[in-house]
Amino acid sequence: MAGDIDHDASHGLAAPGGHYSHAVRAGGLVFVSGQLPIAPDGTRFSGQNFETQARQALANVAAALASAASAIDELVQVCVYVTDINDWPVFDRIYSEWIGAVRPARAVVPVPALHYGSRIEIEAVASVVRGN
Amino acid sequence: MAGDIDHDASHGLAAPGGHYSHAVRAGGLVFVSGQLPIAPDGTRFSGQNFETQARQALANVAAALASAASAIDELVQVCVYVTDINDWPVFDRIYSEWIGAVRPARAVVPVPALHYGSRIEIEAVASVVRGN
Amino acid sequence: MAGDIDHDASHGLAAPGGHYSHAVRAGGLVFVSGQLPIAPDGTRFSGQNFETQARQALANVAAALASAASAIDELVQVCVYVTDINDWPVFDRIYSEWIGAVRPARAVVPVPALHYGSRIEIEAVASVVRGN
Repeated sequence: MAGDIDHDASHGLAAPGGHYSHAVRAGGLVFVSGQLPIAPDGTRFSGQNFETQARQALANVAAALASAASAIDELVQVCVYVTDINDWPVFDRIYSEWIGAVRPARAVVPVPALHYGSRIEIEAVASVVRGN
Repeated sequence: MAGDIDHDASHGLAAPGGHYSHAVRAGGLVFVSGQLPIAPDGTRFSGQNFETQARQALANVAAALASAASAIDELVQVCVYVTDINDWPVFDRIYSEWIGAVRPARAVVPVPALHYGSRIEIEAVASVVRGN
Repeated sequence: MAGDIDHDASHGLAAPGGHYSHAVRAGGLVFVSGQLPIAPDGTRFSGQNFETQARQALANVAAALASAASAIDELVQVCVYVTDINDWPVFDRIYSEWIGAVRPARAVVPVPALHYGSRIEIEAVASVVRGN
């Protein structure tokens, strides 16, 4: 394993549901695994409305970044998978409230389905906070 | 916001349609948002044929890179979302004409739909041009 | 073309089927093109079962990494496109056997179809092995 790759036991996140880390560091960047709407206690929000699911997935991105010495305002690339492109306006509003002034590169990509019947999954890349 | 992250007011591109930048710099790389077939004046090419849409999306990738001190021949990773995998041969031809000798890593990923009814969206990562 | 970008003639891999490199280096990272279940001799495994397809796609990721002075245990981000999310448990098992103790960031993304009728495609980012 590379010395500069961190495999974090993330805090504020349910344990990974498969063979992956929530976040990994390399080359001054943090790579965040696809985050689903799953609460820290493992509760899946698949049956909830889109807004609730989006807020939980974003909260998980923030927790994964925090666990890897990064933060929301260090995000540089965000890839958002949604099962219904009509959820785009709601997502864009929630996301802008969540992230504030920062505007990372982003793609919102419709897919036919997501794991556990979720309506949203969010993958991200961020910078490592200086000093870490 | 990280000092090394640039949020460009891109030239030759319609303003972002949501809460994102067309391109962001970090760690010596430029991350380009998913580019749709939208002209600089905001005209959406969703009703046009695939080739016209592909050429516009590629032009937008080039403009986004230029706005972030990078360029086509610095591309290292390109992710192309298409609504019909049968457009692959046409895309590969147009793309090879556009990019020339450079051959970045690439994935062409079929999806059920794209924003505004587009048939193509292109996300990319490039190196920053030396000296910038 | 940037001096730090390597366009490898990869060994142990069928020649790229389009205008891309199997792997490209930049900024201390290696970007691997979407790998399909295609054998080094060009045989497409699209008609084979999911497990056979997954093992071949993973073998191609390993070969692409090796061609670019990297390796499986340097992986930092893996994006897995599948045509049936029900293949997730089988994939996770095969993947964990393949990669061992390392746990890169990962997303498994269902899509409606893949090139040549494949059931899996794998895109990846890794660190360059030290000294290279």
